[in-house]
Amino acid sequence: MDRTAGIIVIGNEILSGKVVDTNSPFLTRELRSLGVTVRRILTVPDELDEIAVAVAEFQERYDLVFTSGGVGPTHDDVTMEGVARGLNRKVIRHPAIEGRIREYFKEKANEARLKMAEVPEGAELIVDGRLGFPTIKCENIYILPGIPEILEQKFQAIRDRFAASPYFLRVIYTKDGEGTIAEHLNTTLVAFPELLLGSYPKIGDPEYAVKLTLESKDEGYVEQAMAHLLALLSRDSVVRTE
Amino acid sequence: MDRTAGIIVIGNEILSGKVVDTNSPFLTRELRSLGVTVRRILTVPDELDEIAVAVAEFQERYDLVFTSGGVGPTHDDVTMEGVARGLNRKVIRHPAIEGRIREYFKEKANEARLKMAEVPEGAELIVDGRLGFPTIKCENIYILPGIPEILEQKFQAIRDRFAASPYFLRVIYTKDGEGTIAEHLNTTLVAFPELLLGSYPKIGDPEYAVKLTLESKDEGYVEQAMAHLLALLSRDSVVRTE
Repeated sequence: MDRTAGIIVIGNEILSGKVVDTNSPFLTRELRSLGVTVRRILTVPDELDEIAVAVAEFQERYDLVFTSGGVGPTHDDVTMEGVARGLNRKVIRHPAIEGRIREYFKEKANEARLKMAEVPEGAELIVDGRLGFPTIKCENIYILPGIPEILEQKFQAIRDRFAASPYFLRVIYTKDGEGTIAEHLNTTLVAFPELLLGSYPKIGDPEYAVKLTLESKDEGYVEQAMAHLLALLSRDSVVRTE
Repeated sequence: MDRTAGIIVIGNEILSGKVVDTNSPFLTRELRSLGVTVRRILTVPDELDEIAVAVAEFQERYDLVFTSGGVGPTHDDVTMEGVARGLNRKVIRHPAIEGRIREYFKEKANEARLKMAEVPEGAELIVDGRLGFPTIKCENIYILPGIPEILEQKFQAIRDRFAASPYFLRVIYTKDGEGTIAEHLNTTLVAFPELLLGSYPKIGDPEYAVKLTLESKDEGYVEQAMAHLLALLSRDSVVRTE
């Protein structure tokens, strides 16, 4: 099964350069290892309309959508309302989450904390015994927090549901630069048009000049393409393969 | 002067999790320090239509657009054609760049290398004596390479042209969590609606629980808002300010 995904990172702290986004690289690596193809990563500010537009577009284009950030108790946490707006839903205070917050905070369950019980109407709560708070899912959108430790915990708790067919990867490191090997890459793609072929030059590395990645969800196909390309490259230029 | 920017990162290597994008964090920090407001960061695959759609949208929405990646000599380097398509222009082989490539590579100036002379019709070449290759600008789009060392060099060579009015930033570190201080943040925003106020919880930090950032392009405004908020927060909870 092939599945596509889009990631929406929500946060002024990323766009103002205060914080480097580590959540989308984490999600991207995890999804790839599951065989899911990430098609877009978008960072938007903590603004309702920006979130709503992104959610509406991603929800339609991709099988899976992940949002990161903007789910806390403060003024700049507007993801739930943004997702709801993007899906033309209302925001409701979910009784199960409200009960959990009131139980945990007792008399300290103020309006700010209760804001964390607000979700798009019709949202699904994914409860996991290992985590204190459910993960919110709405249509194909998984709403994850911005704090990396919690995002990672939450994703690990639900990751099994995203398994798709895996990618098979082979790698060639070559001493020849891209200008020298480009024609061989083109020839290989003519013979193997479905191959995912990446060419990544590395500056100042004494070991190699270009890392080539060959990928497919068909293991035989990537092996045949690998043999084809290796036969075209000059033997001296190939440092090693993986 | 206020200026907005959008960043388009082009590369399957980012979306497949092989490489962590360091270019957009670099550009974001640099642009912020210049006073430019980054509104969106988007990562798209090395595909013509994806690039064209993103370029067309960003070109219209933001004062400045930066692309990163996809400008080398190989099959997956389709940024120039994608930008051209997004702007409804043709791709041409630029005589000045072609001359430079032929001069540098002599008889090794093959088709792959000459591909690097192809730019959108009407593109401007920004020549800098310190760099071997011009930076390509087309309308408000600056087309930068994906290799971080070269992207950084190229940006440094042109950064002065982006200077806008600066942001003024103050920071408060507090031991109280977001649930406790949210009401004070809301009250501050009622009094100072134009304040850029960020609230960033930190898990497991012995020093503080939340970092608050107060920003504005009006230095007096941010100082008044800072005083207002500090008066609301409990004195014991404020660990330090910057």
